[in-house]
Amino acid sequence: MIPKQVTIHEVGPRDGLQNIAPLIATQDKVDFINRLSQTGLTHIEVTSFVSPEWIPQLADAKAVMDTITKHPGITYSALVPNQVGLDNALGSNPDKIAFFTAASDAFTQKNLNCTIADSVHIIRKLIPAVKEQAKPIRAYISCIHTCPYTGSISPQVVAQLAKTLYEAGCQEIALGDTTGTATPHDVEAIITEVTEYVPLSSITMHFHDTYGMAVANLYHALTLGISQFDTAIGGLGGCPYARGATGNMATEDAVYLLNGLGIEHPINLPALIETSRWFTQLHGLKNQAKLSAIGNQTDD
Amino acid sequence: MIPKQVTIHEVGPRDGLQNIAPLIATQDKVDFINRLSQTGLTHIEVTSFVSPEWIPQLADAKAVMDTITKHPGITYSALVPNQVGLDNALGSNPDKIAFFTAASDAFTQKNLNCTIADSVHIIRKLIPAVKEQAKPIRAYISCIHTCPYTGSISPQVVAQLAKTLYEAGCQEIALGDTTGTATPHDVEAIITEVTEYVPLSSITMHFHDTYGMAVANLYHALTLGISQFDTAIGGLGGCPYARGATGNMATEDAVYLLNGLGIEHPINLPALIETSRWFTQLHGLKNQAKLSAIGNQTDD
Repeated sequence: MIPKQVTIHEVGPRDGLQNIAPLIATQDKVDFINRLSQTGLTHIEVTSFVSPEWIPQLADAKAVMDTITKHPGITYSALVPNQVGLDNALGSNPDKIAFFTAASDAFTQKNLNCTIADSVHIIRKLIPAVKEQAKPIRAYISCIHTCPYTGSISPQVVAQLAKTLYEAGCQEIALGDTTGTATPHDVEAIITEVTEYVPLSSITMHFHDTYGMAVANLYHALTLGISQFDTAIGGLGGCPYARGATGNMATEDAVYLLNGLGIEHPINLPALIETSRWFTQLHGLKNQAKLSAIGNQTDD
Repeated sequence: MIPKQVTIHEVGPRDGLQNIAPLIATQDKVDFINRLSQTGLTHIEVTSFVSPEWIPQLADAKAVMDTITKHPGITYSALVPNQVGLDNALGSNPDKIAFFTAASDAFTQKNLNCTIADSVHIIRKLIPAVKEQAKPIRAYISCIHTCPYTGSISPQVVAQLAKTLYEAGCQEIALGDTTGTATPHDVEAIITEVTEYVPLSSITMHFHDTYGMAVANLYHALTLGISQFDTAIGGLGGCPYARGATGNMATEDAVYLLNGLGIEHPINLPALIETSRWFTQLHGLKNQAKLSAIGNQTDD
């Protein structure tokens, strides 16, 4: 049941950077993405066209998107939270637009300043302009297992939200275990519910490693036939609004797993590790990828 | 196929400490083990009766074993490498004796100063004295997937060694992915081979997290019916002779997984986390358990 091929969506430049307080220079972000573009990655989430008041780190979204060197085989996506963000994003011609909501009203309130229903309403209104430009659409559903404010989330709530977004035209549903609390059976329960309405091939799993479960969850999701995953190089990231959310599943560790399982992917692991170490060392960031740490121990 | 109950063997005091250079005071080790004894753990590897020249940190093996407060429901084991070690260990009356070898001649040469065959010969000679005292015997087989000196190890070599040791009287075979290089299919190949000769219930899996695969391997081993695991509190440890072997599977992260899967065990997770933080903070050790790190972020 394990897929023969897997697609990794690198979310480091967006999800990985958004909660880092010291501002990283625009050119450094451009260099980062340009180097990521040379690692074999085929999907890179470049930035979020969010209000600079909400996430100052990504205030240069347009400059970054306009300046990166776009490689033909790579899909460069941008997250947009609202009409202003979408207008700005479309002006920079990303290959894909990503919307964002969560399976918890408390979380959407803190994160988007509205209810889940309101966020879906906003996404619905934004979809036509994206379709008009024939760009694919991803929708993030955050807090698929627990909400940092209200606790447990029902898989049914996630599934209904996924159904609504999928039917509204979001071809790709990214299910985010934002708090990192899920274990493999939780992941299975969520995937089982969501696949009632959304085809397996339209689901991307997005794991955080806060409780050390990301790689087990990723592995189990593979055995359920999931073939698309969000990861962040160096295990960067976490959510600025999710308490204790300490980093995404590290891309290099995910790729090591794929290699071990004989799953095809186009990513060059040494190039990935080199980029990971370079970027985290340059900016004094904690590199949470085990693979990149081994490199530092044995080669440096 | 996932077992209803799982037994965790805490190897922190032995495997976790053996490669820490600054000497930890005997009383601190005793306090550590005494606190571990109050977390619900039922199996604790206390120390190794190894030559102080090889592992200075464990030179106080006898003092530690003689001083700890032994709780009735807990099995306190000691590792012994040779006749001198066994004589000393038996003088301190541990509940179980653990022997050690590896599936790589290069590794046994560096670690035990002899070949695999010689190490088995030594173990065979030591077994009767342990049997005479009706103590259970564990045999560690290290390097089940790769050797840090010579690379890939065949599952058949591991299985033949496991067979030999099991038939010689070692009721418990602990299979150690010393380098942490294995991924779930490797683990399955090894378990499949070994269970040709050794019952599932006599196998303990011992994972290192060097490549970030420990929790995925542990999860997959559970699905194969393995119900005994070695872990170290705080993810302490690694092998002094294995390059880049950066820590065991963390006990608290393993217990979080067991809880998430609804698997029964007697361990009190908050008590474990408290002990983990206390010990690593007291000695300035890096706590590699994700669960204990969350605690530090949110509660401290």
